[in-house]
Amino acid sequence: MRLPNIPKINLSMAEAARMRQNKLTKPPGSLGRLEELSIQLCAITNKLKPVIDQKAVIIMAGDHGVTAEGVSVYPTEVTTQMVMNFLNGGAAINVLARQIGARVVIVDVGVANVLADHEQVLSDISSLTSNTSLVQHKVAFGTQNMAIGPAMTPDQADAAIMVGIEVLEREVKQGLDLVATGDMGIGNTTASAAIVSVITGIPPGEVTGRGTGVDDVGLKRKVVVIERALQVNRPNRCDPLDVLSKVGGLEIAGLVGVILGAASYRLPVVIDGLVSGAAALLAVGLVPEVKPYLIASHQSVEIGHKILLKYLGLNPLLDLELRLGEGTGAVLAFPIIEAAARILNEMATFTEAHVSDTVK
Amino acid sequence: MRLPNIPKINLSMAEAARMRQNKLTKPPGSLGRLEELSIQLCAITNKLKPVIDQKAVIIMAGDHGVTAEGVSVYPTEVTTQMVMNFLNGGAAINVLARQIGARVVIVDVGVANVLADHEQVLSDISSLTSNTSLVQHKVAFGTQNMAIGPAMTPDQADAAIMVGIEVLEREVKQGLDLVATGDMGIGNTTASAAIVSVITGIPPGEVTGRGTGVDDVGLKRKVVVIERALQVNRPNRCDPLDVLSKVGGLEIAGLVGVILGAASYRLPVVIDGLVSGAAALLAVGLVPEVKPYLIASHQSVEIGHKILLKYLGLNPLLDLELRLGEGTGAVLAFPIIEAAARILNEMATFTEAHVSDTVK
Repeated sequence: MRLPNIPKINLSMAEAARMRQNKLTKPPGSLGRLEELSIQLCAITNKLKPVIDQKAVIIMAGDHGVTAEGVSVYPTEVTTQMVMNFLNGGAAINVLARQIGARVVIVDVGVANVLADHEQVLSDISSLTSNTSLVQHKVAFGTQNMAIGPAMTPDQADAAIMVGIEVLEREVKQGLDLVATGDMGIGNTTASAAIVSVITGIPPGEVTGRGTGVDDVGLKRKVVVIERALQVNRPNRCDPLDVLSKVGGLEIAGLVGVILGAASYRLPVVIDGLVSGAAALLAVGLVPEVKPYLIASHQSVEIGHKILLKYLGLNPLLDLELRLGEGTGAVLAFPIIEAAARILNEMATFTEAHVSDTVK
Repeated sequence: MRLPNIPKINLSMAEAARMRQNKLTKPPGSLGRLEELSIQLCAITNKLKPVIDQKAVIIMAGDHGVTAEGVSVYPTEVTTQMVMNFLNGGAAINVLARQIGARVVIVDVGVANVLADHEQVLSDISSLTSNTSLVQHKVAFGTQNMAIGPAMTPDQADAAIMVGIEVLEREVKQGLDLVATGDMGIGNTTASAAIVSVITGIPPGEVTGRGTGVDDVGLKRKVVVIERALQVNRPNRCDPLDVLSKVGGLEIAGLVGVILGAASYRLPVVIDGLVSGAAALLAVGLVPEVKPYLIASHQSVEIGHKILLKYLGLNPLLDLELRLGEGTGAVLAFPIIEAAARILNEMATFTEAHVSDTVK
């Protein structure tokens, strides 16, 4: 497998940004995490005045064979139905992306059903959703049931990662300054919790949450299913591709590709909740240089998300008790990231504004 | 003093909003605090589809006699200089308000210097700052030194509250759906900590922070000054106007007026950091019906802010380690509040989108 080359972030650009922050008309450090974010953006983009204009959320959609074990409160067909909802502009991510002017790119990398023909789907779409597109690049009709064998072949995992890299490159060609990871796939919090458990070495019972909302009995069943998947497959925690193919998902693999691709183009990549976070864990495992390109958008309600953010050393920007996925938390963080860039670019310095910065 | 009539929020509208949230195409509750916010907006505005279009931040500016005691690292003239910076569009609040399309209204309710003539000031302003206006309504040239006597007369406090109410009414006439409180005044974290101490009954040493950045010696001096101000003035914690006039500030009084005015028009009012929070404490003390109209935007680094939010029972939306004031934290929260309204208004229901909502 050909992994993209990830450049090192530029630490001297970070230092220049830090010096500029201290000349702006505010007490030094008084904008807290906005200042730190602006410095990270400079180091990532290798620019002292990073501009956040073109924004996109890439939603990888895929189904999971493990739903046969009853790990979700929703039936599998909801994945397909929600993809159609995305294309019609009616889902939460559409509303949030419209508000802040981000493109929504939905990628069928592994949905279990054949989606209606793209053109036909688009013909129904209202003008509100002109910022929405569908990429059909199905690697398989969902994964196999990981409770009885590997979710995917290694070749399928490779192919799905490549889909993510290709989609990211397509978006870069259209102009892209900031990208968010999003996911749709009934059953994917089960796969994600399995990944978190393997990579962090923490037992499934301590990293598994309720997903879309299973009750106590459902949660116990979900934990048992993950335990069984780990026993049956014995994924090697030192080999992220092994973990991904045995207990992952096609959409998770696609997101690994999006993350790797973004870092290879010096783009900040905004990580959503548990499923995106599981992809980030694997991407960093594959290429550790990816890590400084990541921005953790929010702290999800899912317990595994807290654990993986801590493992990655990421401090989320928001904590709004979200647990939806789709990239919703990531897109909600976009205005804060954009604000960080604008503060650095647009604020007057003490000298420019004739404001006294001398301490008494 | 004539206080405006504050209508009760509409709890049956809140219930209708909650029911609608549960029909939207997402697992119930999965948008966490966005859902709660949308319900609050419906109850406040008395509308099932509240629209957040016209937005403004009202920045009250005033000086503080207590700066003579050396409680800030910046000289008093920085208040005036920063007002000019606001008018020229170079301050942090200008950058953030431009980004999200909010008007910036600066009110001279108590700046120690005569500001340059408004028209003359505006003639220098670039096109970037066309969303910025100055209201000149000076009640006094700053407060007196509260360490040796009352900061204001009761009449001055009354007059400054009225300025806030009038400015809010002026903005309502231009169209206003969401308003943020902002402040500018060297020395005002000292006055605010004094207010928090009196109202909550917690000693000054436990509610006082570093403001713009005093060192350990400066912090001790600030605490001693507040202790002296409380001994000299003996403000009555059961009489918010007594507290405001003795240890408050003209800009804090102005913000009390903005908050009362907003609630009287059924407008959600977004509270910034410590200084705005001190004004909220007093506004709720004056008219308890104001409380459900408040949205706490962020958790400031200032220790007194955490204490006052807890006292008011408010849960901040953001924690970005800010300590700037100007309304910056409040305006950073605007997109989240707008997102809450849009989610409720624009998302498809399960029925509309033909998505299965039945649990297996």
